[in-house]
Amino acid sequence: MAAVSNDTARIEAFSDGVFAIAITLLVLDLKVPRELHEGQTLTAALAHQWPAYVAFVTSFLTILVMWINHHRMFTLIGRADDRLLIFNGLLLLGITVVPFPTSLVAEYLGHDGQRAAALVYNGTFIAIAICFNLLWRTAAVGDRLLNPACDRTAVRNIFESYRWGPLLYGLGLALAFVSVGASLALNLGLAIFFALPQRQRKGSAV
Amino acid sequence: MAAVSNDTARIEAFSDGVFAIAITLLVLDLKVPRELHEGQTLTAALAHQWPAYVAFVTSFLTILVMWINHHRMFTLIGRADDRLLIFNGLLLLGITVVPFPTSLVAEYLGHDGQRAAALVYNGTFIAIAICFNLLWRTAAVGDRLLNPACDRTAVRNIFESYRWGPLLYGLGLALAFVSVGASLALNLGLAIFFALPQRQRKGSAV
Amino acid sequence: MAAVSNDTARIEAFSDGVFAIAITLLVLDLKVPRELHEGQTLTAALAHQWPAYVAFVTSFLTILVMWINHHRMFTLIGRADDRLLIFNGLLLLGITVVPFPTSLVAEYLGHDGQRAAALVYNGTFIAIAICFNLLWRTAAVGDRLLNPACDRTAVRNIFESYRWGPLLYGLGLALAFVSVGASLALNLGLAIFFALPQRQRKGSAV
Amino acid sequence: MAAVSNDTARIEAFSDGVFAIAITLLVLDLKVPRELHEGQTLTAALAHQWPAYVAFVTSFLTILVMWINHHRMFTLIGRADDRLLIFNGLLLLGITVVPFPTSLVAEYLGHDGQRAAALVYNGTFIAIAICFNLLWRTAAVGDRLLNPACDRTAVRNIFESYRWGPLLYGLGLALAFVSVGASLALNLGLAIFFALPQRQRKGSAV
Repeated sequence: MAAVSNDTARIEAFSDGVFAIAITLLVLDLKVPRELHEGQTLTAALAHQWPAYVAFVTSFLTILVMWINHHRMFTLIGRADDRLLIFNGLLLLGITVVPFPTSLVAEYLGHDGQRAAALVYNGTFIAIAICFNLLWRTAAVGDRLLNPACDRTAVRNIFESYRWGPLLYGLGLALAFVSVGASLALNLGLAIFFALPQRQRKGSAV
Repeated sequence: MAAVSNDTARIEAFSDGVFAIAITLLVLDLKVPRELHEGQTLTAALAHQWPAYVAFVTSFLTILVMWINHHRMFTLIGRADDRLLIFNGLLLLGITVVPFPTSLVAEYLGHDGQRAAALVYNGTFIAIAICFNLLWRTAAVGDRLLNPACDRTAVRNIFESYRWGPLLYGLGLALAFVSVGASLALNLGLAIFFALPQRQRKGSAV
Repeated sequence: MAAVSNDTARIEAFSDGVFAIAITLLVLDLKVPRELHEGQTLTAALAHQWPAYVAFVTSFLTILVMWINHHRMFTLIGRADDRLLIFNGLLLLGITVVPFPTSLVAEYLGHDGQRAAALVYNGTFIAIAICFNLLWRTAAVGDRLLNPACDRTAVRNIFESYRWGPLLYGLGLALAFVSVGASLALNLGLAIFFALPQRQRKGSAV
Repeated sequence: MAAVSNDTARIEAFSDGVFAIAITLLVLDLKVPRELHEGQTLTAALAHQWPAYVAFVTSFLTILVMWINHHRMFTLIGRADDRLLIFNGLLLLGITVVPFPTSLVAEYLGHDGQRAAALVYNGTFIAIAICFNLLWRTAAVGDRLLNPACDRTAVRNIFESYRWGPLLYGLGLALAFVSVGASLALNLGLAIFFALPQRQRKGSAV
């Protein structure tokens, strides 16, 4: 069906729901230590779980920034069609997956298998960044679905900044072969960098 | 109470919430491998879980297509009554169940019990497809609850296409007796087929 | 703060979210059989879990009917104040708890402890039914917060029908001392009875 | 990007989603007793879990009061900018974490490690209270983002009452070094105190 609907409100509401649930499910990766080793305190057991906290905060900030970008993108989009629904669906598929690689990193950082965990983690973000580009290009190339009255500078900024997403997470993926710690530090750094409000930055990559 | 309310907005909001949560809970079926076998790498353990990924993607796309159809149906419906609320409730019952048969398939594909898992999986989708028909007929037969100004071609297309849903998933159920793999491949194929935007297709089943 | 706000929209949205999540989390009580006993088929293992399905369907329909009632009540309420927020909050506390007694019944029906499970289950519904009455009385006694233009017959019907909720679930509680099966059958019967649209019935108890 | 958008509706919707999910996920801390000890009844096993119920109710009421405050704050805010989005995001990070320290308290109250659990619990609430202050000051200092027509008395009340939040939870943290029970009693007391509607109180902290 090639029908075009004016209404993006329910798509945004559904997407917001998925973003909100995925970001909140991340807390399920923070496990209560069930059995303390001989002589171990709860404080020590909690401190021992630091990779889970790093993974939690990194994924939370990343999903938050992605939600802000999704929100910003839809302020410019005036109409929806089936292609937009599909690419938005694929993007949401990526977002709902995030708690899984987050768990992987939380469980395997510092153990055998940490490289595989970091690769899956970065791979998920690359896939999401690609979906963001597909979604945006579906809406914006040739002004297909943009609101005619939308802010043209904002449109240009998104085109310019979104292309960096796959590259930056691709760099994270490549870094994982050299150093898993550096790769995850890049993930956290990107999340903080894009979350921080900046005067100079004109848009924000995924 | 036979009272009729004009307002379908809160029904859509509640339904969107249920769809969004059910689709996001699917990720809980992707389990982090807790114990690696002697000499097994994490990559191998993750690869070994491929049925879980297939089941996840199939169920995600299926719920996504169902949400798109629900969304499309409610653009045509102008009023709600108790019967509509009930059938919508039964439909949502079906949607919330989906993570359970998805887990079954993820756990049992390739093991004893895979046929039972595939039957439950297809049976759930048949039940949902029947609920879609009941919901639609409640709204559309004799124009009971349709928006008087709604698009008549869209109404006819839905009548035409919804009747295929129970049949196609019934075929999936029958196929499971011959080959579980073929049955699940049909499920995935249907999800992709209905998710793809198509010029030729006039509506979409299920 | 005794301030009164005109706006009930965000209360309804938040409540809808809680209802939608609580109803969807019920599926987590449907467990995939992890280990089949010697010679047991998956079908047999699934059939053996029938109490979980009964508890799931009963709780789903009960929460659904409660959501419909909440929805209907707020079509009559025009303003919110702090007391309304508090009683709505207590009601939501009851709703979010439902998955827990549902799990209890699913786990213990047919085993030692089934009476305690049925008592907790009915006790939860009694508490929710009382909250519904408190919430409604806060809004409706002396027309405190009703929409001045609201339907007076609907108001009277709610007063009349809500008082039955605590009594009917109180009966379920009492029945549990005689027969756990009869008590749970009453719970399921009530859920179906109130879910069915009925011409004769003027309102619906909890 | 320093762009300012008029629209706070989608921020509120996303925040409501996160609050609603976090408050509902608390129920996952109520565990069904899986194995009864020799001669133990289910009733005894359920009673034995009282710390989980106390922690559940305390966290539920605390999140509920926080939601009410968030709701009230946004009735005064007329516009959003990136700084507001960030501090709102940090606040939501705190809210989504709450189920984790709640689990800690539920598991460790009455056991070795209860002090650490109470410290983490209070520490989480201090962090959230600080985020509330940062969010509010971003919006209200110099009237940066307030709705020009908003109620000035309400604005002054929020300034006055929010500063108590970090202090009161700081007191709870300090109390945990003296008595864990007293610290958690203070947490529950604060939640009930702020949840109760009060004529005298002009605003509400945290």
